[in-house]
Amino acid sequence: MDLHILDHRLRVISISKSGLVHFTHPLIKLIFLRNRTRCKFFSLTETPENYTVVLDEEGFKELQPSEHLKVESSIWLPLNVVSNGNASSSSQAVGVTKIAKSVIAPLAQQHVSVFMLSTYQTDFILVREKDLSVVVGTLEEEFNIYEEVGGESVPMLSLMPSSQTNSVFAPPATRPTVHPVLIPQNQFCVMSLDPDTLPSIATTLIDVLFYSNGPKEDAQSSPSRDLDCIKFFSFSLIDGYISLVMDTEAQRQFPADLLFTSSSGELWRMVRIGGQPLGFDECGIVAQISQPLADSDISAYYISTFSFDHALVPEEDIVRVTDMLQNQRKEPAAS
Amino acid sequence: MDLHILDHRLRVISISKSGLVHFTHPLIKLIFLRNRTRCKFFSLTETPENYTVVLDEEGFKELQPSEHLKVESSIWLPLNVVSNGNASSSSQAVGVTKIAKSVIAPLAQQHVSVFMLSTYQTDFILVREKDLSVVVGTLEEEFNIYEEVGGESVPMLSLMPSSQTNSVFAPPATRPTVHPVLIPQNQFCVMSLDPDTLPSIATTLIDVLFYSNGPKEDAQSSPSRDLDCIKFFSFSLIDGYISLVMDTEAQRQFPADLLFTSSSGELWRMVRIGGQPLGFDECGIVAQISQPLADSDISAYYISTFSFDHALVPEEDIVRVTDMLQNQRKEPAAS
Repeated sequence: MDLHILDHRLRVISISKSGLVHFTHPLIKLIFLRNRTRCKFFSLTETPENYTVVLDEEGFKELQPSEHLKVESSIWLPLNVVSNGNASSSSQAVGVTKIAKSVIAPLAQQHVSVFMLSTYQTDFILVREKDLSVVVGTLEEEFNIYEEVGGESVPMLSLMPSSQTNSVFAPPATRPTVHPVLIPQNQFCVMSLDPDTLPSIATTLIDVLFYSNGPKEDAQSSPSRDLDCIKFFSFSLIDGYISLVMDTEAQRQFPADLLFTSSSGELWRMVRIGGQPLGFDECGIVAQISQPLADSDISAYYISTFSFDHALVPEEDIVRVTDMLQNQRKEPAAS
Repeated sequence: MDLHILDHRLRVISISKSGLVHFTHPLIKLIFLRNRTRCKFFSLTETPENYTVVLDEEGFKELQPSEHLKVESSIWLPLNVVSNGNASSSSQAVGVTKIAKSVIAPLAQQHVSVFMLSTYQTDFILVREKDLSVVVGTLEEEFNIYEEVGGESVPMLSLMPSSQTNSVFAPPATRPTVHPVLIPQNQFCVMSLDPDTLPSIATTLIDVLFYSNGPKEDAQSSPSRDLDCIKFFSFSLIDGYISLVMDTEAQRQFPADLLFTSSSGELWRMVRIGGQPLGFDECGIVAQISQPLADSDISAYYISTFSFDHALVPEEDIVRVTDMLQNQRKEPAAS
């Protein structure tokens, strides 16, 4: 398999719920007016807590510093696994499950924090730029690693400076924190859209993204109209490809003929990971969920946000996943 | 003829060029998300100096006070002339020309300030609420006057309290200021759009309204790319009807099949009135332009903004209008 280190230098930020109105102008530009920006990697995810924005440096320039903005201090690089046809995997699963054992687990063992961003098209594994040599050192046995340079993929030189190779040595394993999970009742769809038809859904998308929190709702207490449901909406426009993750209630607001899913009517349930905001430094959170899913060959999308992580699993597997997670939380974690 | 006093209480405000970004959120709501607002009268006009917004009190609530916002202190009421089929006028002209002698001139003689807003559908004559009794007293001989009350037109009681009728007596006429005019080279079109197709032009309209001033252009020095052209774009959504006034350069950005004009290819030239910002208290400015146009039976739209007034006359009449205005500025004003 091939691993591509994409040519985007990303920032991960959060915008407070009440602060979104102040960023309407730059965000609408980044979402709808491709001719006016050089941003090539943009993702916006609404959760009950805040809005998480992942975007490249060109996009980041559009956002003025503000009390409503929190910026994670690192530069993150997106990795992307491309199966080159020779893959020996017998798995039918899609999403993060496919890369759980080959990428997620080894990086967790090396104590590399990852920030996952699954889209309709692919799964981006974001790693800190400063961890790149460890990442390459960890994954180069399993993967052909390519760098994107000026739009071309070139094989990455595997020879690392000796000062960096040392850090590939994993520190002793510590017992991982097992985070509480929340399994809301909404059903989600993972969809895409021809970028040329984006203008057709502009007013609906603007409505859902910027106006769906009524003025009377308290920002902190409005995670859900229904206590068992969660507000979660994700839009991304990456290298010209659009991906949307929304629940079926939001989906009903869009014209049915423009958005498409990989297989008609495919619905997903969410597992939100974390009782308290997770932060960016803990390692192994994705691995903790994705490994057992991989063992059971259950497909999963995975979307990290500023505060929590979110796995999406097929609706028909939610009972198995729930049981699995409950067992994980009862039993002592395997070393 | 009938004169309707419409059931909207309007505010006239300006937003500075650099301040528009801070009002993107409420303005997009007012323009595109009719279900989210009870605003029924909304107009936004970009000029080189600023943005003029005319909107009812429901709309006004959406705009947070800001250093970028100037609010004219009065409540304005829109009047609308409806020809009831018995009109004896032989004029073929449209727009403000039709009401120059019957409405504009008498109000000017009574020293009533008017703020004009021509749209594709009709011409709104805005008068201050405090001037209403004078307006009614002045126009009730010529017009059947109706008030709109809860969506119904009811004949207005012509009996005014004696304390108010006194003010109908006109103060002695003073020699009016003759303002300099500017006649830019752009050609304008006055267009409409089915409200149901507004979403189809949303991204283009958002681009033109909110992103057309490039970041490198100085807000004060960007009235025109070409020194002889003027930046002028007007959008209104009033009682469900959309009107757009834009120059042919802006028009080219919109899909040709959605916007319509009253007669195909009809183009208009602009006369901007005022060398210095006009303010809101001077009377007779509209009359000064519209009376000679009426004498020559030349159609005209008329759009007042926070700083200047703008008449639009048919392209083929611009030479006559220019001559007329030059003569007006050479000769002593008729008493």
